Amino acid sequence: MSSPMDLYEQLTAQGLAVRHIKAQKGNKAEVESAVQLLLRMKEDYKLLTGQDYQAGRPPTHTEDDDAGPAEDDEDDQVNPWNVSTSSAKGVDYDKLIVRFGSCKIEQELVDRIARVTGKTPHHFLRRGIFFSHRDMHQILDAYESRKSFYLYTGRGPSSGAMHVGHLIPFLFTKWLQDVFDVPLVVQMTDDEKYLWKDLSLEDCHRYTLENARDIIACGFDPDKTFIFSDLDYMGASPSFYRNVVKVQKHVTFNQVKGIFGFTDSDCIGKISFPAIQAAPSFSNSFPQIFGDRNDVQCLIPCAIDQDPYFRMTRDVAPRIGYLKPALLHSTFFPALQGAQTKMSASDANSSIFLTDTAKQIKNKVNKHAFSGGKDTVEEHRKLGGNPDVDVSFMYLTFFLEDDEQLEKIRQDYRSGALLTGELKKCLIETLQPMIAAHQERRKLVTDETVRQFMTPRKLLFNC
Amino acid sequence: MSSPMDLYEQLTAQGLAVRHIKAQKGNKAEVESAVQLLLRMKEDYKLLTGQDYQAGRPPTHTEDDDAGPAEDDEDDQVNPWNVSTSSAKGVDYDKLIVRFGSCKIEQELVDRIARVTGKTPHHFLRRGIFFSHRDMHQILDAYESRKSFYLYTGRGPSSGAMHVGHLIPFLFTKWLQDVFDVPLVVQMTDDEKYLWKDLSLEDCHRYTLENARDIIACGFDPDKTFIFSDLDYMGASPSFYRNVVKVQKHVTFNQVKGIFGFTDSDCIGKISFPAIQAAPSFSNSFPQIFGDRNDVQCLIPCAIDQDPYFRMTRDVAPRIGYLKPALLHSTFFPALQGAQTKMSASDANSSIFLTDTAKQIKNKVNKHAFSGGKDTVEEHRKLGGNPDVDVSFMYLTFFLEDDEQLEKIRQDYRSGALLTGELKKCLIETLQPMIAAHQERRKLVTDETVRQFMTPRKLLFNC
Repeated sequence: MSSPMDLYEQLTAQGLAVRHIKAQKGNKAEVESAVQLLLRMKEDYKLLTGQDYQAGRPPTHTEDDDAGPAEDDEDDQVNPWNVSTSSAKGVDYDKLIVRFGSCKIEQELVDRIARVTGKTPHHFLRRGIFFSHRDMHQILDAYESRKSFYLYTGRGPSSGAMHVGHLIPFLFTKWLQDVFDVPLVVQMTDDEKYLWKDLSLEDCHRYTLENARDIIACGFDPDKTFIFSDLDYMGASPSFYRNVVKVQKHVTFNQVKGIFGFTDSDCIGKISFPAIQAAPSFSNSFPQIFGDRNDVQCLIPCAIDQDPYFRMTRDVAPRIGYLKPALLHSTFFPALQGAQTKMSASDANSSIFLTDTAKQIKNKVNKHAFSGGKDTVEEHRKLGGNPDVDVSFMYLTFFLEDDEQLEKIRQDYRSGALLTGELKKCLIETLQPMIAAHQERRKLVTDETVRQFMTPRKLLFNC
Repeated sequence: MSSPMDLYEQLTAQGLAVRHIKAQKGNKAEVESAVQLLLRMKEDYKLLTGQDYQAGRPPTHTEDDDAGPAEDDEDDQVNPWNVSTSSAKGVDYDKLIVRFGSCKIEQELVDRIARVTGKTPHHFLRRGIFFSHRDMHQILDAYESRKSFYLYTGRGPSSGAMHVGHLIPFLFTKWLQDVFDVPLVVQMTDDEKYLWKDLSLEDCHRYTLENARDIIACGFDPDKTFIFSDLDYMGASPSFYRNVVKVQKHVTFNQVKGIFGFTDSDCIGKISFPAIQAAPSFSNSFPQIFGDRNDVQCLIPCAIDQDPYFRMTRDVAPRIGYLKPALLHSTFFPALQGAQTKMSASDANSSIFLTDTAKQIKNKVNKHAFSGGKDTVEEHRKLGGNPDVDVSFMYLTFFLEDDEQLEKIRQDYRSGALLTGELKKCLIETLQPMIAAHQERRKLVTDETVRQFMTPRKLLFNC
């Protein structure tokens, strides 16, 4: 992919070319097309670097400041298809905020959410699991003056089985739906999975229906939630396709190459797909919910690896007369083996599935969960463990709701009072009932319930 | 864009790279990805050159044999967005057949169509206006053993006004529908026009509805004809979108770059659009007509500049388990100013519109139609005129149905017996009643008729 410096040099050359053609009094069409190319390259440059192009001023920090996640920040790789780092503590999220140009969720914002909703903030907010945002204050400003918004999140259905990490955005989204009382759209990108994986269209669509059951089991309000398969909804909504085409007209291959690292050997489906993930950010993609209104703002809770899609969306939005979506970004859910990668459904040993039995959960945690403890009990008692790299402790920050209990576990583990086996037991006893309860709720989700959630229809929406 | 020689050299280099990685016993994933890239490049090479890649054998005639229409054959430019030549006789169609790798429509095929249908072949066939085909014998073989097919043609609605040149594929398609008694789908690529032109979605969709009236006025059978706007039908048919995605998965950016000459600065909508023009070639894109059958073959009558889309489609079809569409290609309809370019709606002086009055037709022909006559009457009488470059004569080959009368005009013009003014009068008297009759038929097309033709529905189809 092009680096900011490559693009800077091409831009400089194109600027000279334009001046040359003008000086030679080239014909009008020639001058115009050269100028248009120059303007496009400037747009590309801005998107790639976040800076305006200035002749004679090369991009600053070309290696580190690159806005494209396909480039590495030291060892951290973060893009929609790959998350990895060499640090056992996981990705450096403060650096990621700088690189992506988003805003940190400060205590002040958490307090404001509490004030506006009158509810205790979700522990994902209290503990920095949702750690970054774009325009969240704008959403709250509008909400305070009785202008509501809608939520949009999604899932790529690459298999029938979801793991506990997949629950994070949905658990948080459900909380947001409850405390703000707003409608939600959930995009199942079965077309994306077909394009990226060696799967048939039929498989991808079947996974959509399976995964929808797990999502519904999180407890979303059927009167306020629309779950859709791209493969179905694209063919069921001219309004949705119109927005896809609008986005597709305003993004060049150069731009998606810079943002997603696509190459000339990628299929044209991948290249144009980002527009399909962008379209649900605009309220008139859902006329059954919002009529022809395009002024209902969208708030997207998602893992930070999805941000490239929405950086692109936010760049395009004003150019097609729409509002930029706001975002809330979560950290990744680490693999059992350690926070160097996120949990992946394609590696059964790295994952605790929503279908696992109590026994499987116990075995996986005991066998695979990376420990921050010492090699022997004696050493551990003397020196204490390291909760910052201990996967069991990390999982507890996600799923143990009691702040005081969590803090006591951290201190006891660090002091050596709590052994690794005891910490793992704590996690097992948290996960087992949580997953059993999920399985119970999932059993109650009938084909009819799925059909209901997935039918394009009016939702409750007060605005 | 890449030339065949560029690609040949890249392929050779990649071949060496694969051998190197294998020799170094690189890890399995590395070898696999290198091999996959090699295979893809071979596919690209085949598509670009029509030849299989052979190590040590550079592509033959790299300048002239290029299958991509974006490359020039001497002066002739023929691609979906540009048709031009330096010859006053127009594009050299025999060379184009070689370049595109299609088959000439020989007298034998014309005779066979007459035999199979029991009808006199249309004068477009008798006069070589439809001059090239792909797999037409296969269509007839199947038809003779009572296996029917369907017709697919289309129109890019770039303005509300259509000119007489736009009628050619529709007049011929209507004849095919009548003599073969088969269903027809007509794609209005309003999404394409939005992507390529400085037009709003609303304008493009409005032009679709306007142009549909002119198409319907050609006399298509409402029980056998479905006209659709991409902007509407994409959002009304999950089956259509599924086929679009299938094609999009099996075509790379390298391929569309080679075929259509797209660049990195083109928007992602243009890059993925060819899949949308491909999808109607597969019968299961229209379940309302064909159920879930994907084995009804498609025959596409179109101008030769649309062939790149269908060359791509035919390449993809067997890889996604579908039949290749067959094609019948027409020559271009020349501009009034001469056969160096085709008639263009965006240049009012080059075109006779379907909305022109009798007086406008007379004035345009007299003022603008390029003449093959001599400078003075005396010279003309003595030396004769040249019907091969005379635009009025060319138009008569399109619209004057009487073969004997046409031949007499040709001879009289060549001998000098017929003057340019008289030839033009002949054309004017052919066009005026033809266009007036079209205008009368168009007036009878109501909103309700348009709605009827454009509603996805069952059509009469015996197979």
